This record gives sequence, structure tokens and C-alpha cells, in this order.
Amino acid sequence: MASLLPDFPPGPLDFYRKKASFDWKKMKIFVESEEVVRFLNYASDVFQTLPDFQTDDHSPTLDQQRHKTFKQVVALTQTDFNEKTGKAKTVAAAVRTCIHIAPSAFAKFGINRHYFRDILQNQGTDRHRKFLEDAKNYRINGCFCLTEIGHGSDTKSMRTTATYDKETGEFVMDTPDFEAAKCWASGLGKTATHAIVFAQLVLDDVFYGLHCFVVPIRDARTLLPYPGLVIGDMGEKVGLQGIDNGFVMFNKYRIPRENLLNKYVDVTVDGEYKTSFKSVQEVMQMTFAALSKGRVNIATLAEGYGARAITIAVRYAAVRRQFGPDEDTEIPILEYQSHQYRLFPYLAAIYIVRLFTMYLIDIIDKLEIEQDKRSFSDLITEIHVLSTASKSIAGWLFRDAIQECREACGGHGYLKVSGIGDTRANHDANCTYEGDSHVIIQQTSNWLIKLWPKIEKGTKIETPLQSANFLSDAFDILKHQFHATNVQELCKPENIVDAHQWLVCYLLKETKSKVESLKQTRGSFWVKNDTQVFFAKSLSTAFIQHFFLQRMLTVINEATDVSIKNVLLKLFSLYGLWSLEKFLSTLYEGGYMQGPQGSRLVHEAILSLCGDIKNDAVALVDAVAPPDFALNSVLGASDGQVYQRLQTAMFSVPNGMSRPSWWQEVVNWKSSKI
Amino acid sequence: MASLLPDFPPGPLDFYRKKASFDWKKMKIFVESEEVVRFLNYASDVFQTLPDFQTDDHSPTLDQQRHKTFKQVVALTQTDFNEKTGKAKTVAAAVRTCIHIAPSAFAKFGINRHYFRDILQNQGTDRHRKFLEDAKNYRINGCFCLTEIGHGSDTKSMRTTATYDKETGEFVMDTPDFEAAKCWASGLGKTATHAIVFAQLVLDDVFYGLHCFVVPIRDARTLLPYPGLVIGDMGEKVGLQGIDNGFVMFNKYRIPRENLLNKYVDVTVDGEYKTSFKSVQEVMQMTFAALSKGRVNIATLAEGYGARAITIAVRYAAVRRQFGPDEDTEIPILEYQSHQYRLFPYLAAIYIVRLFTMYLIDIIDKLEIEQDKRSFSDLITEIHVLSTASKSIAGWLFRDAIQECREACGGHGYLKVSGIGDTRANHDANCTYEGDSHVIIQQTSNWLIKLWPKIEKGTKIETPLQSANFLSDAFDILKHQFHATNVQELCKPENIVDAHQWLVCYLLKETKSKVESLKQTRGSFWVKNDTQVFFAKSLSTAFIQHFFLQRMLTVINEATDVSIKNVLLKLFSLYGLWSLEKFLSTLYEGGYMQGPQGSRLVHEAILSLCGDIKNDAVALVDAVAPPDFALNSVLGASDGQVYQRLQTAMFSVPNGMSRPSWWQEVVNWKSSKI
Repeated sequence: MASLLPDFPPGPLDFYRKKASFDWKKMKIFVESEEVVRFLNYASDVFQTLPDFQTDDHSPTLDQQRHKTFKQVVALTQTDFNEKTGKAKTVAAAVRTCIHIAPSAFAKFGINRHYFRDILQNQGTDRHRKFLEDAKNYRINGCFCLTEIGHGSDTKSMRTTATYDKETGEFVMDTPDFEAAKCWASGLGKTATHAIVFAQLVLDDVFYGLHCFVVPIRDARTLLPYPGLVIGDMGEKVGLQGIDNGFVMFNKYRIPRENLLNKYVDVTVDGEYKTSFKSVQEVMQMTFAALSKGRVNIATLAEGYGARAITIAVRYAAVRRQFGPDEDTEIPILEYQSHQYRLFPYLAAIYIVRLFTMYLIDIIDKLEIEQDKRSFSDLITEIHVLSTASKSIAGWLFRDAIQECREACGGHGYLKVSGIGDTRANHDANCTYEGDSHVIIQQTSNWLIKLWPKIEKGTKIETPLQSANFLSDAFDILKHQFHATNVQELCKPENIVDAHQWLVCYLLKETKSKVESLKQTRGSFWVKNDTQVFFAKSLSTAFIQHFFLQRMLTVINEATDVSIKNVLLKLFSLYGLWSLEKFLSTLYEGGYMQGPQGSRLVHEAILSLCGDIKNDAVALVDAVAPPDFALNSVLGASDGQVYQRLQTAMFSVPNGMSRPSWWQEVVNWKSSKI
Repeated sequence: MASLLPDFPPGPLDFYRKKASFDWKKMKIFVESEEVVRFLNYASDVFQTLPDFQTDDHSPTLDQQRHKTFKQVVALTQTDFNEKTGKAKTVAAAVRTCIHIAPSAFAKFGINRHYFRDILQNQGTDRHRKFLEDAKNYRINGCFCLTEIGHGSDTKSMRTTATYDKETGEFVMDTPDFEAAKCWASGLGKTATHAIVFAQLVLDDVFYGLHCFVVPIRDARTLLPYPGLVIGDMGEKVGLQGIDNGFVMFNKYRIPRENLLNKYVDVTVDGEYKTSFKSVQEVMQMTFAALSKGRVNIATLAEGYGARAITIAVRYAAVRRQFGPDEDTEIPILEYQSHQYRLFPYLAAIYIVRLFTMYLIDIIDKLEIEQDKRSFSDLITEIHVLSTASKSIAGWLFRDAIQECREACGGHGYLKVSGIGDTRANHDANCTYEGDSHVIIQQTSNWLIKLWPKIEKGTKIETPLQSANFLSDAFDILKHQFHATNVQELCKPENIVDAHQWLVCYLLKETKSKVESLKQTRGSFWVKNDTQVFFAKSLSTAFIQHFFLQRMLTVINEATDVSIKNVLLKLFSLYGLWSLEKFLSTLYEGGYMQGPQGSRLVHEAILSLCGDIKNDAVALVDAVAPPDFALNSVLGASDGQVYQRLQTAMFSVPNGMSRPSWWQEVVNWKSSKI
């Protein structure tokens, strides 16, 4: 194991590392598996040596960032990195590694590889094999055009059209105005030669809804756009500057009939619409089901970004000493209860979400093999439900984690070299792309609400992944009450799970009855809108938090090492109670809690768990932290040499210690005029 | 009035502007005063024409940003902008205007003008007049050195020393190591010639604590650092890139004895320590009292940044149409309840915090005239208490507001041209500088806890600004219970105020008893640390929220226009209930609420108020929005031409529609090798 995981260099962090109650190496292998650790070591070796993956001394221009990212993508395709990511667990680890080292490259690479190729594969037929082959050999570069300037989540309202012209046997792609321009497509700005385009299919003036086309947009020999297209780069963003997100407008742009991806639907030479599906909606469901995987990846990305921030904040807090019980002693700020409360629940979140995403990616991986057979099955639906909820909740959870870490690092956290600012800027996109989180999280509550009639009928609820099975006992669960009388009792997994199950049942019942009462006076559209705040959204949140906890318990029960099991149980309880704390008023509202006891015990338990975890925090971080070169933070390096690294960073600021070239303007200020 | 405030250009925003229940111009003048509106008009004219205040087409390099910011500072000193900001109200408006147009320049300018000069003025004597004169004429540029690499809030532990040398009659400034280097000083990186330095005064090996010295650091004719100093620029940050934050290390660096600021303390030629104060701590209190003003300004900054974000998000939401009750109609996303809930409480927060900061700045302005006489008075203490709490709470409040607005703008909010990303990055610093918010907010709870014995004794509590007077009736208030039976009743100001007063009393009582119980077993240092989470911090929060509400009610009662009064009352109720919602579990814990009614009514009231405010939201934004050129956002401009502006922005991305210079690498990808 020592060979697999070398010790960290000695330094200020030893103070806490020595106090740890468990072996961080055993923990890492337990969480990630030996296979993954080997992969991570391999990846570190590869990336540390590749020239295009080193940090820039000067901050690069936008074009330089785009160029570097492209070179990183090329490098990714030329290492055996990709082949090594066979098994699902490794995929999750690979995703994290990529976003630590090259977040923009990861997105460009992923879109090209998965979205473009997978859709050709899943929606296309033999006649599209050529595109697939060329994409695999990088003779062509793909991008994925769904979003329009005026419409994102609202796919039905998208206005790019593909009208079939019987005379020529071609589809005429057209963008009525800039609001209908396809946009945000990664790679479209500079490097893509082909696009998967979702457009409204029009046959003899009849609209058939969104369909998938493969569209050549740039000449693969010159990278110049084809006539009839206006293609551009969207410019600077908040983060992920390496991605050349672009926009495209089609001006009566013609493509062959064969470019319609026709696995599930087709248009004959005479312009007849053929499909085996009952409705166009079904076709789209099929298509969008393919996006579920992307969403689980976002939960993985979010956790990966969160792990960066929490690593930096916890290690810095373990080194940084401020104030103390007496004049002469200063204590690490990790000793402060409020600091523990700010950071440790998010540390627990890293473990709980990482275990969840590894699990779900594994399911999806297995699923893909037999996807066709199982299409539209309950399983796909449940995966969709879990991926949308986890995408939203993990996105928000780690958004808050990163911000808390940024502030927990004080002023120095505001330095670029702390690494937190870029992490926040890059993570930020996770909250809005792949379906705005506020919109897609509704998928989860909709699914649960549909289950309610069954529950009322007393039908046993059995879903493939068992995320909702407990709802079979909803009416019993709703009779439960908070009964813990002390912290120890409250921290028991069964009590934390019980409170979450009660929450889901209560919020489901409340949401459903709110829906019913609104139905009397309002249409279904407004009923849905007016049941989100305090109802459906809280329901989806409680539901996915419960499933996170359920998954973690399953893993904890697999732990054979007692010290590992114990600390994971503490993380479980801390995360569970912290999640519960956000729902305290609901627990009171619904009568699960009464009187001061419940709220006080929850608070007391959270703080005592924070205290318990304190001495393990650094080791817990060590087991999930990115390698130093990937973390690339002066505050978070594994040697804890914060001040030496700060000095090196500041002393090596380009021209940092020299006069500005415009020094005379300063000197002559007194006499200067406008 | 039309001449004072021209109408907005017609466009998509008219839809809601026509529905407004009040006249936004009257509102603006009521909130800001005619004097301020005239000032804002003047400022707009000035800044729109000054070359150094225009936006860059390309994103500038770090040095270019530093240079531009310096030129902006020079320009600021050369307009009569400054003279025009005589009255307090105008100061607040000027602060907002500056951070809208040039946040970095504002900070550089403010530090130089206020921190450097004010401290020379307040702590110095005749022998320092020369520095003051030179600073006023910009013959020298000042900076303010307090923070060290290793210590920020913990000023006692700062390690830069100033040792008096009797032989030469000089102070020897010394920095033992990099951890003791002074840092973060604005202007120190590139442009400052002199620094106010806080150093440990040492006389005959005796430490006298932090004292203030004025230290020449760069030759004002060459801008080259003096020998014995290591001065550098701290490099890139998360935001405010125009500020040249720097660090300095003193290597046995000698300055004349006279450079000690000796208004309150002095060191004689023979090295004797002289002061009229009882303790060195008192001297420092005096010194740091001068920082209160800075803190109030931070609440003003935070609100100013928040106003940018809320303006962008509300106007974009009023224009952007997604989904609808039927196939053919799409509705503005402002119609969605969840969108209203996400934005409107923050819109209310803009009004409530703006009114508060204008009030407090006014108090401080008047105060300064007679500061000496009143030193250490209850008034200074109360201002300090209010400024620390408002700095922390406003910082966090608008941090969340900006993030919510960023997400509420969906993907396009991630574009740099949306303007939200930079706003977030610049605001971010407000949470950690001028005293980390988690640390300084303790000042408020400490003050309240000290009042408790008086309250128990039944002594009448009367503080100069009456922020705590209600505590005289604490024991009566604690007997109050939630009694509203419907939304209308709940929304009444007296009920919302009552709930907040109960909260403050309850949290004060709980915190105090927690303190007492911990005292049995732990030292005072640990007692304070272990009473922050769920106790002292919540207490400070509830206290300042109550004062915000109290202040707004006072202003609302001054309103003569009924339509203005009504909409302000709605904002008051929405903000108050939204603040209460965060404390619901405490209201249950303490028995103020029982059963489901309370929580349900609060939720119902918040949502119904959101609905009430919907048609006024655009007009409410119009009354507090920065002018278009200052807002500089494609999504938030006052004409609502979102899509036209997006198109212009994207079509004018530098080289956006041309091939990258490295196009051949893309074309040759298939054959490229590492």
C-alpha cells in the first residue's frame, strides 16, 4: 500500500495527521478502490509531464486559453488515459481528475466524445457510420447544438427549422432570427467541423417537433465556415474560458436527407414521416434519456470542485493560527467551533456525494449495454429522476461549499494563487447548464407526486433502485415522532433516516394536497408553478438527501475496518443532521417535533460531531484530495507549507517588485491635468 | 421632475412599467432626495465622457488594469466630483456610483483619501502637517499597512516592530520574517510613496503594543523603494484587479522619532512613553474607532453591488419568455412564483439596506465634527456595533443576492457581458476585508450580552441610536406569542417587528445562559468560541435585521405619497417575513410559535407578497438601478433590448467570427503526434 500511496511530506499538517483515528490510505482505497488509486497515480504521472497541462506564469489571453485547451484535448486523445477509464468507478475518478487539471479541456473532450458520438451511435444508422468513424479518428470534430439564444430548458419552443425539400431531397435548415440562433455549443466557437443540431422538422408545412440532424458546418481542411452559416464565438465567460462556446445561424442552409438521424424516425424520399414510436414526444424522451449520464457527471463535477475547495480550506485552517486562550499561545483556526461548523458538513458532503455518483455512474454504465431492450423502463425513469435531483442539489451544495471555503480562507482566499476563485468560477456553470437546476429538479417531485395515488391505495412501491420503496409505509411513517432524548441516540443512523423518511412523506402529502386544492381554481400549468416554493422543491431535496444517506449506509456496512467505519458513521450523522437542520421548521410544522428539545438536540449533536471530527479532518481530506500539482493552491498543498508558498508566489509575481512602466504618471500626478 | 429624471426608452419593459402602482421617479426622489438625483445626473455626465471610465473592448492585462485604475483615481481627484459629495446622503450615492463605474479606483481613492489622511489628521499633530499637505496635493501617495501575512483580525499578535534607538533618535522598523510582512495594503504594490504602518512599539525591550507610524517607502521623484525595504505587488486576485495590493518587509529600516503619530501617545527623545490614556488598548480603540466609517461604507458597497445584480436579473426576467399555460403563449419568467421568491426578497433588501446605510453615514458624518469630545461615548460604541453587524450581514445578504441573480439569468448570466460575474468577484472581498465578518460580528453580540444584567435588574435600556431600547421590556416581550390568524394580519408591521423583538430577546437570553453554563467548566476564550454557532451569531443577525426594519418603518412613516407608502410597506413585510422564515425553527423552539399555523402562514404570506410586488418589480428596480453605462450589462439595460444587445455583443467579440491563428493544428489533429 505504501508503494501505491506514498506518505505526505512532513510539515505543519503532521500535528493533526498524527491525531487521526484512522489510516487515510486505507480510507482512500476503501472509497476509491485499488484500481482507481492505480489509475490516479498513472494519471498524475501522465499529466505532470505533459507540457500543455502545466500552469501559466502570466495569465493567458482568451485566445491563448482556447488554444491551450485545444492542445489539452488533443493530448487527452493521444494518451491511453481514455482506454484506462474502462470501468465505471474509474470513469468517475477520471472525470474528477480532468476537472482538477483541465476543466475546460474536459468539457470540450467530453462533448466531442460523448454527446456527439453517442448520439450518432444511439440515434444514427449505417448511413451515419462515416461520421462516427471520422469523429473517432478526429478527422472531424463534433459539437452539440440544442440551446437557442431565446430558449434553453423550454425545448418545445425552439425555432430552428429543418424543412424537407422533396425536389432536391434535402433538408433546409433555417434560423428565423438571432433569438433562434443555436448557442452555448462547446467547440462551435472555433474548432467544430460538424454539429448535431436539434431542429423542428417540417414536412409539407406540418411541424413534427424537434429532431436530430448531423450538419457539416466548417470545411475540415480549412476550418472555414460553409456559406449560408453565421458562426461565432460567444466571447468571455465567468469561467471555463478555455471552452469555445459558439453560436450559429442557418440561412436556408441545405443538408442531405440522409443527415437526419433515423434510428427511431425517418423521412422518406417523398417526404413521408415514418416512426415506430407512438408520439414524437416519445422520440424526444428517448433522445433526452441519453442526457441523463451527462447530469450524473455534473454531480461528479460539482463534488470534484467542492473537493478542491474543502481540501484548501481544511489544510489552511489546520496550519493557520489565530488568537488563543492566553497571550502566548495561538491555536489553529480548525480548533474554532464556528470554523468547524462552516467546513465539516461540506467535508462530509464530499464523501456522501462521491459515493453516490460512483454508484449511479456504475448503474448507467451497465445499463447502456442493454439500453434498447430497457428503453422507457422504470429503471431509466428512476435514473433520470435521481440524476436530475442530484445534479441540482449537488450543484447548489458545492456552490455553497466553495463560497464558504473561499471566506474561511480569509483575505488570502481572495488571491488567485489560492485556487478557490477559479474553482468557484468554473463550478458556477453546473447550476445552469444541462437543464437549469430549478427546472429539472421538478422531474423528481413530479415522479413522486405520481406515486401518491398508489401509496394511498396501499400498493407496494418498488422501484428498480429502491429509492422510493419506503413510501409503501408512508402512512405509518407519518405517525412517527422525534423521540431521541440525547445526542448519542439522535446520531443513530436509523433515527436520522427516519426523520428524512418522515420529511419526504410529509412534504409529498402536503405538496399533493396543495396541488389538489389549487386544481379547483387554476389550470395545470399554474398549479405546477404555484406548488414549487416550500413544497415540490423541498420534496425533491428531502428525497435526494434521503437517498444520499441510504446509499452511504449501504457502503458503510461494507466497511470491515472498524476505524474507517466509525469515522464514516460520524460523517453520515453530521451530514444527515445538518441536512435535517435545514428542515427543522418543517419537522415542527408537521408535528414530528414538539417543544424545544428537538431543535436544541439537533444543534447540540451537530456541534459535538464537529468536535469529534476535528482531529480526523485533515486525514479525511487527505483521502479525497486531488494531488498537489492538480490542486495547484498555495494554501492547500499537502505539505502545509502555506507561508513559504505564499512568499514564493508573491516574490514571483511578474514585475511584482519593479516600477510600473507608467511610473512617471504617478510621480507627476501633482502637476497633471485632464 | 421630468427634467431631473427623463423617461426610459420604450421597449419590452413597458409591459410591466405600465402596470406599476407608483411613479418610479417619485420613488427615486423619495429614497435618494432631489439633491442626490442631481448629483447622480452630474456624475453620469462626468463619467460618460471621461476616457478612462469607458469599457475595454479587449480584456486588459493585469498591468493595464492597474494603470487604468490609477488614471481613474487621478481623474477622480481632478473632477469636482469630490467637492460635490458634501452632504452625507450624497456620500452614500457617490460611493455607489464609484463602485458601479470603477470599483477598484474607488477603493484606491478611498484608502488614500480617508484611511491615510484621516489617520494623519486624527492621530497626528503639527509635526505631521507636511505629510497631510503633500497628500492633499498628491505630491505623496499614502497607503495603510495593518494586516500581516500571518495575522489579520488578530491585531494583538502582529509582529512588525518599531524599536526606539535613543542614540540616533530614530525608530527601527523590522519585519522578523515573511509571516510578519505587512500586506493587502491598497496602493502599496505599485503607487504608494508613504505608508501608515501599525507596528509594535518597543522601548528598552518593553513592548507597548501597536502604534501608528507614517513611513516613507518610495522616493516620490522616482517611485523606487528605499533601501532596507522589500516591496512587492501581491499579483492577481479574484476581483478588483485594478487595485495594486502590496506587501512590504522592513529590514532594520530607520525612520525619525517624529514619524510616530503622537496625538494620543508620544515617545520623548530619551525614549520615555507618554500618554493621557489609561491603557494602550484605549489608544487602539480610539484608532480603530476611525475604521467604523469604512465598515458602514462596506454595507453601502455590498448594497451597491447587489443593486447591480438585482437590476440585471429583474429586467431580464421581465423580458425573457419561457413556457406558458398553452402551446402558443409564452410568459415572462417574472410571472413564475419560484422566480419571484428567488429575486424579490433581495429587491426589498436593496431598499432596506440603502435606507439604513444612508442613515448611519449621516450619523457618522455629524459625529466626526465633535468626535474628540465624544470619544468612547456610548454613541461611538453603538455605531461600532451597528457598523460591524451591518457590514457582516449586508455582505452575506448581497453575496447570496448576486449568486441568486447569476443563476436566475440562466446560461447567459455566465457571459462576461451580463456583468454579474464581475459584480460577484468584486463584492466577494467585502466578506473578508475590514475585519472578517465572522469575527467582527461578535462585537454586536458581545455588546448585547453586556446589556443583559441591566435588563435583569430592570434598568431602562437607552442607547443613543435606540437600537436596543426595546430590550427594556425583554421579559414582557418574551411572553408574547404568535397570534396572526391570516396573511393580512401577519403582514402588519407591528407583528413582524414583534416577532423580531421576541427573537432578539430569546436569543440573547439563550446565549447568555449558554455562556453562564459553559463558564462553569471552561475559560472565557473557549466560552466565547463555543457560543457563536446557533447562539451569538444568530443573536447579532436577528438584532441588526430588527434595526433594519425599525429604520425602514421610520422612513415609510415620512412618506406622503400613498402609492409610495404602500409599495414600501409591501417591501418591508416581504423582507421582514423572509428574514423571519430563516428563524422559524427558533420561533418554534422558544414557543413563540406552536402547531402548523405559524410556519404555513409565513410561507403563504411571503408568496402572496411576491405576487403583489410582481407588477411593481420593474419600477422598483428603475428607482434604484445604476444608469445603463454604469451598469454595463447586455441583460439589464433600461431599454430591455436583451436580444439585440446580445447579438451586438456576440457579433463584436474580437476575432469571434474568424479562424483561430492555430487553425492548422485543428485541421491536422488526425495526424498529429505528441
